[in-house]
Amino acid sequence: MSLSDLSPDALAALHGEQTTAYAELVAKGLKLDLTRGKPAAAQLDLSNELLTLPGEGAYQAADGTDCRNYGGGQGLPEIREIFAELLNVPVAQLVAGDNASLGIMHDTLVFSLLKGTVDSAGPWVKDPITFLCPVPGYDRHFALCEQYGIAMEPVDLGADGPDLETIKRRVAEDPTVRGLWVVPTYANPTGSVYTAEVTEELVSMPAAAPDFRIFWDNAYAVHHLTDSEHPALDVLGMAEAAGNPNRVFVYASTSKMTFAGAGVSFFAGSPANIDWYLKNLIKRTIGPDKVNQLRHARYLGSADGVRELMRKHRSIIEPKFGQVEQILQARLGEHEVATWTRPEGGYFISLDVPDGCAARVVALANDAGIAMTGAGAAFPYGKDPRDRNIRIAPTFPSPDDVAAAIEGLCTCVLLSASERQVATLDRPAGGD
Amino acid sequence: MSLSDLSPDALAALHGEQTTAYAELVAKGLKLDLTRGKPAAAQLDLSNELLTLPGEGAYQAADGTDCRNYGGGQGLPEIREIFAELLNVPVAQLVAGDNASLGIMHDTLVFSLLKGTVDSAGPWVKDPITFLCPVPGYDRHFALCEQYGIAMEPVDLGADGPDLETIKRRVAEDPTVRGLWVVPTYANPTGSVYTAEVTEELVSMPAAAPDFRIFWDNAYAVHHLTDSEHPALDVLGMAEAAGNPNRVFVYASTSKMTFAGAGVSFFAGSPANIDWYLKNLIKRTIGPDKVNQLRHARYLGSADGVRELMRKHRSIIEPKFGQVEQILQARLGEHEVATWTRPEGGYFISLDVPDGCAARVVALANDAGIAMTGAGAAFPYGKDPRDRNIRIAPTFPSPDDVAAAIEGLCTCVLLSASERQVATLDRPAGGD
Repeated sequence: MSLSDLSPDALAALHGEQTTAYAELVAKGLKLDLTRGKPAAAQLDLSNELLTLPGEGAYQAADGTDCRNYGGGQGLPEIREIFAELLNVPVAQLVAGDNASLGIMHDTLVFSLLKGTVDSAGPWVKDPITFLCPVPGYDRHFALCEQYGIAMEPVDLGADGPDLETIKRRVAEDPTVRGLWVVPTYANPTGSVYTAEVTEELVSMPAAAPDFRIFWDNAYAVHHLTDSEHPALDVLGMAEAAGNPNRVFVYASTSKMTFAGAGVSFFAGSPANIDWYLKNLIKRTIGPDKVNQLRHARYLGSADGVRELMRKHRSIIEPKFGQVEQILQARLGEHEVATWTRPEGGYFISLDVPDGCAARVVALANDAGIAMTGAGAAFPYGKDPRDRNIRIAPTFPSPDDVAAAIEGLCTCVLLSASERQVATLDRPAGGD
Repeated sequence: MSLSDLSPDALAALHGEQTTAYAELVAKGLKLDLTRGKPAAAQLDLSNELLTLPGEGAYQAADGTDCRNYGGGQGLPEIREIFAELLNVPVAQLVAGDNASLGIMHDTLVFSLLKGTVDSAGPWVKDPITFLCPVPGYDRHFALCEQYGIAMEPVDLGADGPDLETIKRRVAEDPTVRGLWVVPTYANPTGSVYTAEVTEELVSMPAAAPDFRIFWDNAYAVHHLTDSEHPALDVLGMAEAAGNPNRVFVYASTSKMTFAGAGVSFFAGSPANIDWYLKNLIKRTIGPDKVNQLRHARYLGSADGVRELMRKHRSIIEPKFGQVEQILQARLGEHEVATWTRPEGGYFISLDVPDGCAARVVALANDAGIAMTGAGAAFPYGKDPRDRNIRIAPTFPSPDDVAAAIEGLCTCVLLSASERQVATLDRPAGGD
């Protein structure tokens, strides 16, 4: 039964129960952390072979390149071949880089700001620039925009893509709109999967700015949690067919496949975009860490090797997601005080509590020793206009810790929601 | 005897000899490459232990950090401790990064352009910016400036530092002068070593721009070729003592110690500069490749471990430098057609041929199958105003190839110089 349907007495009783439950929670002195989407130690253990690779005397790439020396800006062919298949892009249009795709996003943004893209009249930095930001979204995307003074406009994100009407209108009418952030597969934090239809619209819609770019961060392309594995779309082919070959910058990395921050990153785009990227990149670095690329190519072996590894990841983290779902349903379901996502992949669950309650819930949880990502983190400038969204990152803690944290979080949600409902009743009708 | 002192007949004879020698050289069909400062395979072999490190089950840093997961922006303490000693900087003021110090140079420049330094009124990109460039210098430094539209002013570089009078005047009088490129130890390509006196002047001289920065690229800090090992100066302490603590950005990397492009890079600066760098860096990346830092810390062990490794490098490359010196002296000495450096460390020899001859010499060499760095590469915009400087990079080829290449190069120098002298004689006095 919804809280608003409860009688004043029943509501008061619930509020009292939750106040007591919260006091007990605080008394437990928990120290749990659900803040970031980090792999658990058990997941990292899967790739411990990397710690002794590429192996004794193994420094030559398949083409004879000595990986210990400078050069080779586009990265080793053998690692590019594996990920071209997984990302559904041509090998020739894929660059293998260093340890962080966020670094490639940063650099492509910086090159656009300081030099302009292949379709730009000049450096972006000379004009006001706006990015459209599907929300809830990835806080580090938004932080990049904020860092460089790029205006951000939030756009609602649904299960299969963002509010297309708004996006199409804004991109068509406003030449300052130069970018759109997209996490196409199992989006952070909603788990949204952009459908082929949505993607088709995004790559073909008219744009006022000829250098409008979609920052297509396919961070979770192979991070399935169910048997209905959503494959990577041929977004570059679709963009080319639509007459907008240069519209899409594709990013990915192995950070949540092998070792986080010690893996290989990727950038894909049209031939013109790849030329542009490499031409700018060579000013920044003489070449990527090819030894690490060789290490990864030898360890992963093939696209199927990656798929097999990702199934092992799934076996470790799927139960944690299941636990979160079960506890949220058991504790919050009957009260209709929250909705949450049931992702088919990725690293997050997005929880919506009653409007105006998210910051309070996160504060209550923190005070009880349960560290949650800050309320509003999934929105530009960290500001959730409805103060309702909370990101749950269940992968890193142990199953027991995940359960304890979500149980505690539910207590905080119920306490916050009931105290809010009590306050509504106390407020005279017509007042503010 | 100098060419200009030769009788016309003797000159004609020399020219004829060299023409014949060059024809013979071309007939050999050589394929040699002295273009880049790359370690030889024998040098890379020294560090092959890295190919199986950090080792089975070895992923924890000394402080318990799991190096396989995200985080730790400043880098592992154990690798920073080793290089703080070698670079003569405080551990707390040293950042260990990814595989390329050029990347850190690029990023600190980009952060300055787009955000401004801690002492800047605003982003550099809003105003015209000038960098002073000691020449001959490192082409990739100059390429960074050119890439981002930063004006470059060449300043003559001597054996123990650049033309201080010019630098002090320009820095004092012109607030657009925001940067000075310095390779303080065994500079590329001259081998210059900045003395304590020169360094004292650079860190203490008055600057019109409060955010004037010295980009102190100590790429060859421990790359000694003789027993008189020049130690790294305490440039940060000197700058602080002079009241300009934030003036110096220090860069270094292990690229020419372990594996080129697969090592660890470093950035050092004042506490304020380190805060500024890390605050900007966290927008670009969640953390460096700590597994590679652990790999290097375990392999190198200590500062003494690095010193020992560098002595092994020296034993491989010192003979090549000796060979270059010997051949240049034997072939060119008596004719007084060239001067060259006798570096006590680093990776290069800087050869000056008669004015107006460098491009011709490099073209002749290329046509004979000896690839040299482009004439003028060591100057801003690739333009050597006297067209006389040629960079010799003897480390990568085998000793036999180095000898063959330098023999051939000497023929090209003598041919070019003698044909030029012949042309001078043919030219009527007072003509142009």
